[in-house]
Amino acid sequence: MKEKLSIVKIGGNIIEDPKSLSHLLGLFSKIDGHKILVHGGGKKATQIGNKLGITSKMVNGRRITDAESLDVAIMVYGGLVSKKITAQLQALECNALGMSGADANAIHARKRPIKEIDFGWVGDVDSVNSKGISKLLQAGFTPVFCALTHDGKGQLFNTNADTIASELAIGLSSEFETTLYYCFEKKGVLRNIEDENSVIQHINSETYKSLLANGIIADGMLPKMHNCFHALENNVKQVCIGDSEMLQQTTSNFTTLTL
Amino acid sequence: MKEKLSIVKIGGNIIEDPKSLSHLLGLFSKIDGHKILVHGGGKKATQIGNKLGITSKMVNGRRITDAESLDVAIMVYGGLVSKKITAQLQALECNALGMSGADANAIHARKRPIKEIDFGWVGDVDSVNSKGISKLLQAGFTPVFCALTHDGKGQLFNTNADTIASELAIGLSSEFETTLYYCFEKKGVLRNIEDENSVIQHINSETYKSLLANGIIADGMLPKMHNCFHALENNVKQVCIGDSEMLQQTTSNFTTLTL
Repeated sequence: MKEKLSIVKIGGNIIEDPKSLSHLLGLFSKIDGHKILVHGGGKKATQIGNKLGITSKMVNGRRITDAESLDVAIMVYGGLVSKKITAQLQALECNALGMSGADANAIHARKRPIKEIDFGWVGDVDSVNSKGISKLLQAGFTPVFCALTHDGKGQLFNTNADTIASELAIGLSSEFETTLYYCFEKKGVLRNIEDENSVIQHINSETYKSLLANGIIADGMLPKMHNCFHALENNVKQVCIGDSEMLQQTTSNFTTLTL
Repeated sequence: MKEKLSIVKIGGNIIEDPKSLSHLLGLFSKIDGHKILVHGGGKKATQIGNKLGITSKMVNGRRITDAESLDVAIMVYGGLVSKKITAQLQALECNALGMSGADANAIHARKRPIKEIDFGWVGDVDSVNSKGISKLLQAGFTPVFCALTHDGKGQLFNTNADTIASELAIGLSSEFETTLYYCFEKKGVLRNIEDENSVIQHINSETYKSLLANGIIADGMLPKMHNCFHALENNVKQVCIGDSEMLQQTTSNFTTLTL
């Protein structure tokens, strides 16, 4: 039987609020078995970028990562956020290791192909080095991944943290029974976006289709759910969406997705 | 017989010049056996700090690390420099892992005690987790350490990179036959600071005393040499000081220190 692995992706709003972050890290550190944390950098990267006089370039409403913006992402995601989370987890006796996709050659990506837009230094994931990451897990380390990947030729990329989490979950499913947790400020996928208590407790491929058809899953939730089902279709056992409390396992008030 | 371990500390001038850095990394990647790279951030941290409007505070000519300066160090040393070196080493097929002292709980420190000056978030090294670092080395990883440590309670510190290198070398000497390389822009310890070719090829405890007495070792070289002999007195086999070429091992034009 495969050992269990929990992969927890935390959203920007949690990272930006020290109290929420430290509450979440407390719960995360208590998860039994192998675990991985995945984070972006929240608004901190934009704030630091602005202070450095680097303005986010947008084309057709989409953010472009030029060389300067990539440097800011490397500093904020790979440095400030990664190392502070790592130090906090160590204080909770969780043997964290802050990593980018370049560290331990963990996540290979390629520059997003130029179609209508050149997104700059944005990477689409090619492969996850599940053997290398497994070695770290088996040695008792808890990898903390930021939203950076590399091409194996010396170039780093900015890669969406949700995607990193799902690709890690897929890649590591060959060796572990993997559950992917998307942890954000809401209690789960809501039937009515204005009612915090309208959490849909279970979604499968069938109900997913009707939720899409009825427009209940829309806007920002669309790519998130796409990521989730992509993971489920590629051997990830289960995906959970909810707030920090879902990591307690004593509540069932969050959304569980299965095929 | 113990396995060999090479610990290479690279100076600011190498980090700041992309050509020198990539030359050095090429040589480093070819070193046989276990190896560790240690780096600071050069002037980059000061430049980024200045752009962010954070000016270095000085008291009696000594730099103070306040909370904002520490954040800059975490971003630049732990993020920008660490991740770029890691990505470059991966391109050279060296399985690098960019780390601070908090990662893998590698280096514990305590806030420097306040005597005449409160240095702020500067950490003096307490202990090196040689078992944890050994595990990574034995698993085939090459740790790349930046100049950051932690107290195990969630606080990161700025710690001199020369000190980190010598403390790592001392801590790991229990498990490895350790050689410590201080790699900078000069060919070694010079008898005459104005003559690049006056490299002193070998220094031991006896000749060290006379070089001190004659004022040949002075200024910035004093703390460096103190670090070196501190390492030798604590089971490090050999310390070498020179430029990148010393890593080639085909030259002997650098300074070797033994007890």
